[in-house]
Amino acid sequence: MATKQSKNGENINNFTIIKDGTITSVPGFYAAACHCGIKSSKKPDICIIYTPEDSICSGVYTKNKFCAAPVQVTKETLKKSKSIKAIVVNSGVANACTGKTGYGNAKKTIDIAAKYLKTDCGSIIVSSTGVIGKQLPMDKIEYGIKECSSKLSSNGGHDAAKAILTTDLQTKEIAVSFNASDDEDIIIGGIAKGSGMIEPDMATLLVFITTNIGISKSLLDEILHEETDKSFNSITIDGCQSTNDMVVVMANARSSVFLKDKNSKYYDDFKNAFSYVMKYLAKKIVMDGEGATKLIKIKVINAKDIADARTLAFKVANSNLFKCAMFGQDLNWGRINAALGSAAGCDFDSDKVKIYFDDILIVENGMGVEFDKVEVKNLMKERELNFTIDLNYGDKSFEVLTADLSFDYIKINALYRT
Amino acid sequence: MATKQSKNGENINNFTIIKDGTITSVPGFYAAACHCGIKSSKKPDICIIYTPEDSICSGVYTKNKFCAAPVQVTKETLKKSKSIKAIVVNSGVANACTGKTGYGNAKKTIDIAAKYLKTDCGSIIVSSTGVIGKQLPMDKIEYGIKECSSKLSSNGGHDAAKAILTTDLQTKEIAVSFNASDDEDIIIGGIAKGSGMIEPDMATLLVFITTNIGISKSLLDEILHEETDKSFNSITIDGCQSTNDMVVVMANARSSVFLKDKNSKYYDDFKNAFSYVMKYLAKKIVMDGEGATKLIKIKVINAKDIADARTLAFKVANSNLFKCAMFGQDLNWGRINAALGSAAGCDFDSDKVKIYFDDILIVENGMGVEFDKVEVKNLMKERELNFTIDLNYGDKSFEVLTADLSFDYIKINALYRT
Repeated sequence: MATKQSKNGENINNFTIIKDGTITSVPGFYAAACHCGIKSSKKPDICIIYTPEDSICSGVYTKNKFCAAPVQVTKETLKKSKSIKAIVVNSGVANACTGKTGYGNAKKTIDIAAKYLKTDCGSIIVSSTGVIGKQLPMDKIEYGIKECSSKLSSNGGHDAAKAILTTDLQTKEIAVSFNASDDEDIIIGGIAKGSGMIEPDMATLLVFITTNIGISKSLLDEILHEETDKSFNSITIDGCQSTNDMVVVMANARSSVFLKDKNSKYYDDFKNAFSYVMKYLAKKIVMDGEGATKLIKIKVINAKDIADARTLAFKVANSNLFKCAMFGQDLNWGRINAALGSAAGCDFDSDKVKIYFDDILIVENGMGVEFDKVEVKNLMKERELNFTIDLNYGDKSFEVLTADLSFDYIKINALYRT
Repeated sequence: MATKQSKNGENINNFTIIKDGTITSVPGFYAAACHCGIKSSKKPDICIIYTPEDSICSGVYTKNKFCAAPVQVTKETLKKSKSIKAIVVNSGVANACTGKTGYGNAKKTIDIAAKYLKTDCGSIIVSSTGVIGKQLPMDKIEYGIKECSSKLSSNGGHDAAKAILTTDLQTKEIAVSFNASDDEDIIIGGIAKGSGMIEPDMATLLVFITTNIGISKSLLDEILHEETDKSFNSITIDGCQSTNDMVVVMANARSSVFLKDKNSKYYDDFKNAFSYVMKYLAKKIVMDGEGATKLIKIKVINAKDIADARTLAFKVANSNLFKCAMFGQDLNWGRINAALGSAAGCDFDSDKVKIYFDDILIVENGMGVEFDKVEVKNLMKERELNFTIDLNYGDKSFEVLTADLSFDYIKINALYRT
């Protein structure tokens, strides 16, 4: 498919980024948010994402054993239901480690939403983020659902993007579009939340994606899993995994395009655009990482296998000592070596390791080499830092995004009271 | 053996803690330290620990793949040599990731020491700690060795304890004694170094133990490995593993007691006292953890097996979010649950988990329970915090010591320039 210039957007490959795009940039999707009183601040703390269409929906969830009630309930719903019309999300209380009462409250949230949205319970899923161990205030939840369902709007995506935040400083939203025929655009919108407890499988990260494409459930599942591994499962902020994460995609088939399988027309276009949306949101999460002053890319190349590449990349990305050095703008490559060397079970030869900071060779044969100190000093001041670790031990690679460890991370997390 | 009161010490079980005890409290051990110029400050940066006796010596080392040159050389020496007389330790430069030159310098250090100590190369081992990637300044090393070997003293242990420090704020030293007959004391002395990059197998941690007992090599190896697992392999400060760690014990057989095997007389007494020395030094290291304001004990009990208990204890002990909450004196138990739940591969039932803070039940059936907020608030102000995680899933347990994550950790590690 040829690249096309949108009226107000930017061209990226075969798709266009929609200016100020969000989940409700997708035809047939509506959203609304309000402050129902879960958060003590006046910030919005509940939202509904809604489509009147029967949507195909896929989800990926935290693998934490203390999986929160809304995650359990949503998993169950998506197993049974053939179509989904609404997602109710609250922030402020995670409804995690809340036992049977918490499970009942997640179910009750669905009942309340079904009443106000005039749809059946089986087509509604729920999601929560916030403090662990508190029960949802159900009177406030009911007020919020009533309020949101009365003002659903095709401009409501931005409000929803705000309502799902906790310690995030910025909203994370995007929509992209590609042309599937002369008069039909396929649009993919997404919003995300997350800035701490960010570690694969998954992170305190909520991601909601909408699209007007028609697609088979099995194909949507496959694309979602594959692209999650390349985006939200390839980022870390603090190595801490949350109880509440989910990435959910709803496809409402408003367009006439239907993707049955990988051979369907427009499959590549959709996959490509979907991948961009996922990676864009994942990067935004790391950039907004708690206290982060740096976005750091760690790419391990020429590893024996992908598992080793992944383990080694995460070892460096989660090393507190390395992250502190990045915050201090100090190219302390010894801490990269020490982190690599500590990965028990990984097969590589320490004498073959090369490390590049940007394009500058800093380690060869496992040892430091001379480099231009002024150039490095200036590069270390940049917002985005890139490291490539060449193991010279195979042909597999893996890339992880991480943030530095700063005073503000401590401040935020020492003072985020239970 | 009966408990006995020492003149100036404290009774602990069957042994006595020697007041101001150190490695040279052990008969036949001498030490000296000086500033040879590796560190830019005027602090001591090299020391020698020496005994004229042929000593049995055992070592445990880092498992880091980027194992430093002194670790490699010491491993080789201890494999070949039947007895050891001296350890040369420098701080300031780790001689890690230094290739063949670094390896050669470690060997050269031994040659120099052999010359000044008038002993053969095979009876000398070396150890280094400090910045990774720099070569040892051999002229300064020679000066330091010459200086130290000329002033070896039975009071030199305290100076050696100072010379091995890097970011440590405090020296870590101890000696204990037990009576093996009417006129013979068995003494065990130890010094240690470490406050960052502390994580099992091992940590930037150097430990040197001396004793006047006679012991078979195989028994000393066994005791050292077993007690290392219970002490230095059960602590963490930042989850970061070093390239240079070693724990070395020298037994010079000045006393007439000889331990051939576990059935030998005084075996239990020795093991017990040795264990105390190891655990005491390990605890001191965590208490002196970089920026640490809290010493936190995490005990996982009733686990299915020790491996799970260990993994889960370390998951909590290394959770940045948990450690920040401890620094903030906030009993955020949700972060303990989240950390436990993130331990992939561990077998337990989240609904059965109980957590105690000190003696106060804070989590039952995986959920928070009501507790006395004032009592908890006061306990959170203490220097030492104790958590017991009861999995109710077996009968195995494991205990880990960790520190909190504070502003000062960041400060120290962002500004520790390469």
